[in-house]
Amino acid sequence: MDKLYIIKIGGNIIDDEARLKNFLEDFANLPGKKILVHGGGKLATRMAEELGIEQQMVDGRRITDAATLRIVTMVYAGYINKNIVARLQANNCNAMGLCGADGDIILAHKRSHPVIDYGFVGDVDAINSKLIQTLLESNVSLVFAPLTHDQQGLLLNTNADTIAQELARGMSSQYEVSLIYSFEKAGVLLDANDDNTVIPIITPDYYKELKNQQKIFAGMIPKLDNAFNALKSGVKTVIIGRAEELTRLVSGSSGTRIQT
Amino acid sequence: MDKLYIIKIGGNIIDDEARLKNFLEDFANLPGKKILVHGGGKLATRMAEELGIEQQMVDGRRITDAATLRIVTMVYAGYINKNIVARLQANNCNAMGLCGADGDIILAHKRSHPVIDYGFVGDVDAINSKLIQTLLESNVSLVFAPLTHDQQGLLLNTNADTIAQELARGMSSQYEVSLIYSFEKAGVLLDANDDNTVIPIITPDYYKELKNQQKIFAGMIPKLDNAFNALKSGVKTVIIGRAEELTRLVSGSSGTRIQT
Repeated sequence: MDKLYIIKIGGNIIDDEARLKNFLEDFANLPGKKILVHGGGKLATRMAEELGIEQQMVDGRRITDAATLRIVTMVYAGYINKNIVARLQANNCNAMGLCGADGDIILAHKRSHPVIDYGFVGDVDAINSKLIQTLLESNVSLVFAPLTHDQQGLLLNTNADTIAQELARGMSSQYEVSLIYSFEKAGVLLDANDDNTVIPIITPDYYKELKNQQKIFAGMIPKLDNAFNALKSGVKTVIIGRAEELTRLVSGSSGTRIQT
Repeated sequence: MDKLYIIKIGGNIIDDEARLKNFLEDFANLPGKKILVHGGGKLATRMAEELGIEQQMVDGRRITDAATLRIVTMVYAGYINKNIVARLQANNCNAMGLCGADGDIILAHKRSHPVIDYGFVGDVDAINSKLIQTLLESNVSLVFAPLTHDQQGLLLNTNADTIAQELARGMSSQYEVSLIYSFEKAGVLLDANDDNTVIPIITPDYYKELKNQQKIFAGMIPKLDNAFNALKSGVKTVIIGRAEELTRLVSGSSGTRIQT
């Protein structure tokens, strides 16, 4: 089985030109098959402000109303996605930028919640793994904007972490998938304030132990639960660490590896 | 050789919800391999106005400065492109939206002109016909936003008519290509004010005759010269007519066919 790297970068990289430049060079140089999933960054918020569109918040959560959906479609699938693609091309990486509507690659449905109307937010139902494979086998690297569609004509704003995870699960029968979540810390830490306390490997047993001993930062638990769920669905490894250290994350000399 | 339809729709369709809806239904129902190239419409101009960005004009021509490039990237490659894709999906047409940077499909260079600096405007150098063929053979219909790239990291605003023509030329060795330009009139007219005077077929000899007799509307001459150039490059037929009549344009019962 060929290896496939699925790498999610957060908005903090998108917003920082120097870090983005380094990251895109590292991504371009990564050998083999690879997929990048990007989040939004502050540009969508700035654009909403410039256009005088107020962010709708319900119970502390941002709601994707029609005006917000229009902005994220422009900013995520247009500006950010196409600029990343053009810059990867300049680094000799033949990238193709897509959202989940393209090629029916990520089918979702509008979230239905008993209390909160999240608006145009999608929960993923299916991945078109055959078309993704065709593209990867043509030596194209894919760059995904965090939008899906419902097959009824609606685009839906969808969490980029979730998209990365669903792509990883969906591709795990064809490839040996490593799912890499990049964030602002060096990995899963024993002491949340000390980057020198990265845990190199977490297995299911060790995770149980860490939780029992309350040695793990509470905010990490949903991320790790998701990681172990991905492993259960056939994903080979989940790696958590800094986007600036992509090459070392992949080689195993940085970050935290979650594996069975 | 398989048939391939390459259809360019102008901004007047994009801006008109009822006509766009009908067009997308007709496009979805068109059997076989097909590519849609869309222009911009008024949304980019409205967005520039809302954001307080002034259009730069030099000698009556719009200049694509950095702020304008950012807007067209958002509006063309983001909003318009992805909404067309989502709506084609709803019509059971598996569409994929791309710009010329995606998969290095349309390589261009920044226009260099002795007098006018057009800004971020691209003139096309090459088409990645192999990747386009791979996608078409996977039963994906392609939807192109009018942007290209220069392999140095720049996105470039590029005329949608030109993109349609370059795609048609580039694909003509693999497919029997029909290039369809849709515009506001029923075809090439003998009397510019009378839609009942559509010329059904124009051959090179007849074109010469029409020009000699000054029977052809001056504004059509560059369009027709382009059409005959496309034929010289191997395109089978060029069809000019109304987007609302797509099915009839394809069947030959409407519009003007330019052929050798």
